[in-house]
Amino acid sequence: MAEFTHFKKDGSAVMVDVHEKPDTYRAASATGTIQVSPEVFAAVRDHTAKKGDVLGVARLAGIMGAKKNAELIPLCHIVPLTNCEVTFTTDENTNSITAVCTTSCVGKTGVEMEALTGVSTALLTIYDMCKAMDRGMVIRDIHILEKDGGKSGHYIYQKEEK
Amino acid sequence: MAEFTHFKKDGSAVMVDVHEKPDTYRAASATGTIQVSPEVFAAVRDHTAKKGDVLGVARLAGIMGAKKNAELIPLCHIVPLTNCEVTFTTDENTNSITAVCTTSCVGKTGVEMEALTGVSTALLTIYDMCKAMDRGMVIRDIHILEKDGGKSGHYIYQKEEK
Amino acid sequence: MAEFTHFKKDGSAVMVDVHEKPDTYRAASATGTIQVSPEVFAAVRDHTAKKGDVLGVARLAGIMGAKKNAELIPLCHIVPLTNCEVTFTTDENTNSITAVCTTSCVGKTGVEMEALTGVSTALLTIYDMCKAMDRGMVIRDIHILEKDGGKSGHYIYQKEEK
Amino acid sequence: MAEFTHFKKDGSAVMVDVHEKPDTYRAASATGTIQVSPEVFAAVRDHTAKKGDVLGVARLAGIMGAKKNAELIPLCHIVPLTNCEVTFTTDENTNSITAVCTTSCVGKTGVEMEALTGVSTALLTIYDMCKAMDRGMVIRDIHILEKDGGKSGHYIYQKEEK
Amino acid sequence: MAEFTHFKKDGSAVMVDVHEKPDTYRAASATGTIQVSPEVFAAVRDHTAKKGDVLGVARLAGIMGAKKNAELIPLCHIVPLTNCEVTFTTDENTNSITAVCTTSCVGKTGVEMEALTGVSTALLTIYDMCKAMDRGMVIRDIHILEKDGGKSGHYIYQKEEK
Amino acid sequence: MAEFTHFKKDGSAVMVDVHEKPDTYRAASATGTIQVSPEVFAAVRDHTAKKGDVLGVARLAGIMGAKKNAELIPLCHIVPLTNCEVTFTTDENTNSITAVCTTSCVGKTGVEMEALTGVSTALLTIYDMCKAMDRGMVIRDIHILEKDGGKSGHYIYQKEEK
Repeated sequence: MAEFTHFKKDGSAVMVDVHEKPDTYRAASATGTIQVSPEVFAAVRDHTAKKGDVLGVARLAGIMGAKKNAELIPLCHIVPLTNCEVTFTTDENTNSITAVCTTSCVGKTGVEMEALTGVSTALLTIYDMCKAMDRGMVIRDIHILEKDGGKSGHYIYQKEEK
Repeated sequence: MAEFTHFKKDGSAVMVDVHEKPDTYRAASATGTIQVSPEVFAAVRDHTAKKGDVLGVARLAGIMGAKKNAELIPLCHIVPLTNCEVTFTTDENTNSITAVCTTSCVGKTGVEMEALTGVSTALLTIYDMCKAMDRGMVIRDIHILEKDGGKSGHYIYQKEEK
Repeated sequence: MAEFTHFKKDGSAVMVDVHEKPDTYRAASATGTIQVSPEVFAAVRDHTAKKGDVLGVARLAGIMGAKKNAELIPLCHIVPLTNCEVTFTTDENTNSITAVCTTSCVGKTGVEMEALTGVSTALLTIYDMCKAMDRGMVIRDIHILEKDGGKSGHYIYQKEEK
Repeated sequence: MAEFTHFKKDGSAVMVDVHEKPDTYRAASATGTIQVSPEVFAAVRDHTAKKGDVLGVARLAGIMGAKKNAELIPLCHIVPLTNCEVTFTTDENTNSITAVCTTSCVGKTGVEMEALTGVSTALLTIYDMCKAMDRGMVIRDIHILEKDGGKSGHYIYQKEEK
Repeated sequence: MAEFTHFKKDGSAVMVDVHEKPDTYRAASATGTIQVSPEVFAAVRDHTAKKGDVLGVARLAGIMGAKKNAELIPLCHIVPLTNCEVTFTTDENTNSITAVCTTSCVGKTGVEMEALTGVSTALLTIYDMCKAMDRGMVIRDIHILEKDGGKSGHYIYQKEEK
Repeated sequence: MAEFTHFKKDGSAVMVDVHEKPDTYRAASATGTIQVSPEVFAAVRDHTAKKGDVLGVARLAGIMGAKKNAELIPLCHIVPLTNCEVTFTTDENTNSITAVCTTSCVGKTGVEMEALTGVSTALLTIYDMCKAMDRGMVIRDIHILEKDGGKSGHYIYQKEEK
């Protein structure tokens, strides 16, 4: 039966011991979406093209957030990422902006949390920059898209699994 | 027409100048939900009661994350919070856990972002602690519940507004 | 009966809400001692006078550590200190070095933890700089010396109280 | 004769150059004790069992503090820990709580300081959470228990060595 | 005679005690220039207009760096800035880019160091982003432009004063 | 033609992917100078010899700043440095103080930025500690002196190259 890896038998929280694992290539990508008002959507799209670059700021924040993952998530290991990238796609039918954060390392533990923290920070930054226009924005559907490497191998998110 | 407050006319990003605003009481609360598998839901619920305390760890991470908000969100001001609290409710019908983060300060700018960052960090921590059991968890519906204080006054989230 | 201030009735941890407290002057001092070998004691004393300044490095580390207090202690508030000072006295009879850290702020909450974190960081830094000579050093007797301000008023440590 | 490793001949502080050392497994454990009043001792023991979990919060703080070691101790290297664990034992005869922090890495330098910083942060957190009940608590006997790996090999603390 | 404010009579470093100072408005601006090759200059100018936004990234880094000032400069106070702005001007005759960082607070101590740290971080970020093209870039002429508020009053940099 | 490595074809900023690079020894040194008034110069020189150690504080700040490089420069990788050293030379003819920061790692990416950030932080710290005497100090000539290792090999700064 599946068990927590972050707790010992007596229930106390631990950082998982990974010292016996080999240094191997690991990669992950995570996604998430922010639902905005039509007004905000137009402002992000048009200012990005012309002047104020909401997505440029959010991209940087996402990359810097991914680097801070081990400071934020209590039991995560410090992982020197070998790569971090944040991309956005905008959907004008739904007035939503979707972020994807891709991370990699050569190490003893995976980088899913770095990708998830990168996505979350990027979306929160969009919220911050647009909240003077609309406080009703909603961040949704943050999850892993895919991860590779490590003992648990390749994983691809299946939308239907829930 | 509504405009970005984080950009100057030429499109360059700025931290909004708040030095002329009075120090007043401001409060905010934000929420978000993580959708987990039945197995994870049972493990969180039962280990919390008995041994491993996933929500206790996530609560701490949320509070500490809220304090780190100005390091994560590029254009946020440093705000010495006067209060930060994270609570959870669990719904066994949907196998979901909902976090609420409440923040306050006496200052020149609001604390919505602190509340949102607190909620996000708490939910990401739940993800981290349970991901060995299930990588298909999804974080959803992160938004402001309510905020008060400041020039824009009282705001309550209206679900139907989108 | 005395009660925890960092827990709610249901046992969940919170940052204490201080928003209704006035901004008043608060000060604290804390102390602690590191017991070293005669060899380390002589090296610290002589290098400080002549060349390598162990206590100068430890003093800086203590001041910077006090500023980081709210990042380290989960439920502490962010407090912009108005003062931080670390002093050392050396006792050659016992080969021990005693640090005192003094802190102050004008705010809604006290600065005892900042003083204690400052002392601890200073003593740990002495340990780090001397550990190649002796790993058997012991840090002892870290406690508040005195604090003032706030609802609980003036407190002076009484050695006999335990 | 033993010498400082953190100073050059002219007395200026340096981070020790470790680039020629191989990456090897290194482990350390450190301990420390907080002496509390009978009232605090009972509250920690009973609230832990029932509601407020002082030691659970302190454990997390200790693990996160160990990860922050290189930010706190000026001349320490950044070490990606492969493991970090904090445990507590309580002694009702002396009303004291003893923490042990165990750390490991595969790297070029040891992890004693990480273990010591983890212990110190855990004990300071207990102080913070209980200080509304009693300000006279004393932290004592922080030292290395054991370390292994690296050029200096295996070390076990000998109580009588001072 | 002028004296250090960051040292006590015995030479030990302290954070200056400011608790008796009133909270007043203080502002500062600092500048600095990076000298680049013609190739880098063209790339920054053209990519900024079209695609890669070196100055947009550097602006964000400067603002975030200013917020981190008290973590970097050992004896600086934590200052919640009320404003931070970074602007750039480019000079194609000299292939140089000049940054100006403007900061303000309502507090007990000035914000010159925040402005200087903001400028330095912005210029270092330009260096980082362009160093694959040219490692010979030089950062020069970092100084305060102007500061206001506090006991020392208004100061304007005079180029001839050296 | 030379190109930015920190931007993708569409202009979005990325952390460069280094996961395929081998772990090799890399070293760098950077320099910079602060021009001060005769009064400040004398105070730094004499207090250093006798009492207040401006350069000792600046050296520590430089080393700790170099360790924080990846938090400050948005697209830099986290690099566990194997060495960091800051030295100063003073020139009484010109009333200037020159800092050199030397860094190394065994990794997949270079440490030039760490050396530059170390130098900048050290010089800013001198500014901070002396600014009560003279606000007209100027930091100048920050650049790489030399770097080695990695695909781009050995580089030595040539003063005439601009």
